[in-house]
Amino acid sequence: MGWNRVAIIGAGMTRFGELFDRSMEQMTAEAFTKALADVDKGIDPDRIEALWFGNCMGSLSGNEIPSGAVLANALGLVGKPASRIENGCPTGSDTFRHACMGVASGIYDVVVAVGAEKMCEKPNRKSLLESGRIGNPTFAYSQTATTLFAPQIHRHMEEFGTTKEQMAMVAVKNRYNGSLNPNAHYKTHITVEDVLNSPEVCSPFNLLDCCPQTDGSACVIICKAEIAHEFTDEPIYVAGLGCATDPLYYHEKELLTGFACTGGAAGQAYKMAGITADEIDVAEVHDCFSGVEIMNYEDLGFCNKGMGGQLVQNGETSLQGRIPVNPSGGLMSKGHPIGASGIAQVLELYNQLRERTGERQVKIHNGYGLQHNVGGYYIAVSVVSILTRTL
Amino acid sequence: MGWNRVAIIGAGMTRFGELFDRSMEQMTAEAFTKALADVDKGIDPDRIEALWFGNCMGSLSGNEIPSGAVLANALGLVGKPASRIENGCPTGSDTFRHACMGVASGIYDVVVAVGAEKMCEKPNRKSLLESGRIGNPTFAYSQTATTLFAPQIHRHMEEFGTTKEQMAMVAVKNRYNGSLNPNAHYKTHITVEDVLNSPEVCSPFNLLDCCPQTDGSACVIICKAEIAHEFTDEPIYVAGLGCATDPLYYHEKELLTGFACTGGAAGQAYKMAGITADEIDVAEVHDCFSGVEIMNYEDLGFCNKGMGGQLVQNGETSLQGRIPVNPSGGLMSKGHPIGASGIAQVLELYNQLRERTGERQVKIHNGYGLQHNVGGYYIAVSVVSILTRTL
Repeated sequence: MGWNRVAIIGAGMTRFGELFDRSMEQMTAEAFTKALADVDKGIDPDRIEALWFGNCMGSLSGNEIPSGAVLANALGLVGKPASRIENGCPTGSDTFRHACMGVASGIYDVVVAVGAEKMCEKPNRKSLLESGRIGNPTFAYSQTATTLFAPQIHRHMEEFGTTKEQMAMVAVKNRYNGSLNPNAHYKTHITVEDVLNSPEVCSPFNLLDCCPQTDGSACVIICKAEIAHEFTDEPIYVAGLGCATDPLYYHEKELLTGFACTGGAAGQAYKMAGITADEIDVAEVHDCFSGVEIMNYEDLGFCNKGMGGQLVQNGETSLQGRIPVNPSGGLMSKGHPIGASGIAQVLELYNQLRERTGERQVKIHNGYGLQHNVGGYYIAVSVVSILTRTL
Repeated sequence: MGWNRVAIIGAGMTRFGELFDRSMEQMTAEAFTKALADVDKGIDPDRIEALWFGNCMGSLSGNEIPSGAVLANALGLVGKPASRIENGCPTGSDTFRHACMGVASGIYDVVVAVGAEKMCEKPNRKSLLESGRIGNPTFAYSQTATTLFAPQIHRHMEEFGTTKEQMAMVAVKNRYNGSLNPNAHYKTHITVEDVLNSPEVCSPFNLLDCCPQTDGSACVIICKAEIAHEFTDEPIYVAGLGCATDPLYYHEKELLTGFACTGGAAGQAYKMAGITADEIDVAEVHDCFSGVEIMNYEDLGFCNKGMGGQLVQNGETSLQGRIPVNPSGGLMSKGHPIGASGIAQVLELYNQLRERTGERQVKIHNGYGLQHNVGGYYIAVSVVSILTRTL
């Protein structure tokens, strides 16, 4: 037997931003009710058989342990199966992957994947990444997300001549796209000069090279492909799912100018979908820092290794380019509430492939979209999903 | 399409106990290598395509964030997909459920479910349950696991005349069974008088009514049923999987003399397996406290509501009884390292159904075994799995 095919039939999200006034439960309930309302032909919530909840930081950020059962209560789905997935920065996309497997398994017909994170409230104890250290001297002290990603970018600049200007172009592009997205955290335009003149956080990243700390929630409703037309005439199908891991420490990593796990996850997803990178019309990728998006282009196969800087400089990843990347604004402009980020990427692709994103709509040729996250403690895990208009 | 059937082909665990000298990675590596060695016809680790890791307390208990990628590294499975599942006390069984869905989906052929918890080291910050409070005044202060479970047991005593002596009989039975299990945390015999004379922790629980704080890891290797005979002539198949949630707070719970989510999860699993409770030969259930096992008998359908105390008093759940429960020693004697507990229950059933557990072997008639956990924050989630000798 192969796998039972899976379709997306509705998607919803909160505005991403500083949502100090809203609890985890309130944010997820809003994303869920918007996803229900988004189902074209309507859906009785009783049809939903199981729930997956993506939350990364969990109890690290406060007094709440946002478990599956808490979410089942928040969404009015008490009684149904509910599980929490945690997988570092790809937590949201891995939650989507697990919801898809639940349907693909044949055990559930209609399920929900919801992710949420509250990032803006100050933790009442040690920070996420400080808590993540395992004792390796490289990482045990003064570790932040920038210091984790910076060495790879420097190596990329050294080996391939990638420039800070090219990185700034990623930031400018994504901020422009975000200005067209009402749910984005940052909506103002910036220039390459703005990025280059913003304060340095950790070389080579200036402040405007970094994604913000963001609160938010996103939700998608999925079902087995055979029944999708009960709910909408335009379901979007899941074509491929991939997840891969890397060695934890630099001295064990073979690729230092990118992330091998991204290539691994993408390879699995392309193989499952039976397509190559050339057939992707639009992608939402993990741009936690500008330079990371450039490396993702290469790791995902959108260009050859070392050519990522040129790709953005030539405008090929802009809304009107050959392979538009992060039309939603990406993590850098839309924001990065970890457990929600991957699911919000899926939501954007769902709407892009249905050609209903207004001013930021890209051209759809082959009908394929790709979603990608990479990170986790030690940048050692990546998840990639490929969506398609046709079964 | 139905679901692709799943088989267990190997299982391994560490000794459960106080393992101060071993890291999470060391414990999981031992459980994994023992599971590999347990595969009758051998298995090349390269055949393993994906990994699920169960860990509940995670970063709450120290400086480590035990993510999927960390485990892929610990087990020598770098590159493969790896995800962490958290679902409160049923974390281990939900990890098994997700690994089964991964195979059932048709996406993976051979996968690993591994769980681990380090419970004995003192947390360097607030305790698990204190961190779990959400602000409800009932639970915000002085909450420990005993205070969460005690009210239900008192109500059960009040409504059905269940006695502290009957609860003590559960403790005595499970400690006896554990004395026959080399991997159990507690191996000494106790008497009903010992239990009744042990210090009161939280009425109606005395010290010997409570499971210990335990370190340990357990692992099972599963594959799609069609290829199971490549690995063993005696695979054990998965017949049913269930997971259900409850309201969080007492004032919303309808059942106060048991846990509705256990009945919900069991109902799903029985339906999927196409059997009733009468066909179960042996069960491993969530005996975090003696009285909880008594309520589980009822919620799982082994006897009518209110008759659980009689069931243990009549010896029907002893090794030689009609429906032996917790032949491994259960959480009370074997121990309860949360992320590992459910997987260790599956391991026990795997060996019981293969009739190779020596002195604690029960009689197998119909070839079905049932595994059960209940709990999580606010006792609002349960997971049940049913295993079978025949496809």
